[in-house]
Amino acid sequence: MTFKSHMHTALSEAQAAAERGEVPVGAVLVGPDGSIVARAGNRTRELSDPTAHAEVLVIREACARLGSERLTGHDLYVTLEPCPMCAAAISFARIRRLYYGAGDPKSGGVSHGARVFAHPQCHHAPEVYDGIAASEAEAQLKAFFSARRG
Amino acid sequence: MTFKSHMHTALSEAQAAAERGEVPVGAVLVGPDGSIVARAGNRTRELSDPTAHAEVLVIREACARLGSERLTGHDLYVTLEPCPMCAAAISFARIRRLYYGAGDPKSGGVSHGARVFAHPQCHHAPEVYDGIAASEAEAQLKAFFSARRG
Repeated sequence: MTFKSHMHTALSEAQAAAERGEVPVGAVLVGPDGSIVARAGNRTRELSDPTAHAEVLVIREACARLGSERLTGHDLYVTLEPCPMCAAAISFARIRRLYYGAGDPKSGGVSHGARVFAHPQCHHAPEVYDGIAASEAEAQLKAFFSARRG
Repeated sequence: MTFKSHMHTALSEAQAAAERGEVPVGAVLVGPDGSIVARAGNRTRELSDPTAHAEVLVIREACARLGSERLTGHDLYVTLEPCPMCAAAISFARIRRLYYGAGDPKSGGVSHGARVFAHPQCHHAPEVYDGIAASEAEAQLKAFFSARRG
């Protein structure tokens, strides 16, 4: 199934991020025709940029390529529940559908905490589908943090 | 007084943004020694980047220069209440104090809506000082939007 395939690609971006010493989160942006237009893992350490989350990187890349602030009709796949920064960026970019893997009770901003899409100050909310390949995403994160503690 | 001087600089960045056709919001980042380390106005249209808010631009610039994801001891001055994206970026960058001008009931994420700093999912909250030169910031925004409607 297509959405599982895209999440599998996002998981491979997350794995590549882990191998670079970055928190393993991966994202894939899919255009209106169903093809992947950008893919990335976190690069906050490499770029010394606290905003370089996987979601922000794919949104910035696709917007630059299209010459537009908006990605109407685009869908985003991300392995972890977005933080409030990424959720708001998703809203500004007018992403159509957000598919995510693991929930993030500690730092998430979609189903937890700030719940960015749930306020009248949010002027566009994507359709949200959660729990896709969540166990794989959770296993990646657990392996990463237990190795760093070890 | 220093904080008024920094907000005045932020207001001039907002004015320059308006003259480029961008929503007039300006930001100034001040280092631990009290000197300005970065200043910017919105550039979302120019850069085709929905994340290119003034606050994100100064944080990214200063982090890149320092080679760090964190701006410990730095203070941020911004003419308008930050949105949830910028509030979360401010938190990630460990900004010490946030000074802002006008409140933003329509799109703000600090004192309105998502209230990003008010949840346990937010792991660092700056000290917040609001209402500084608020009437000047409001006047800039009103002039900009009334000219666009005109």
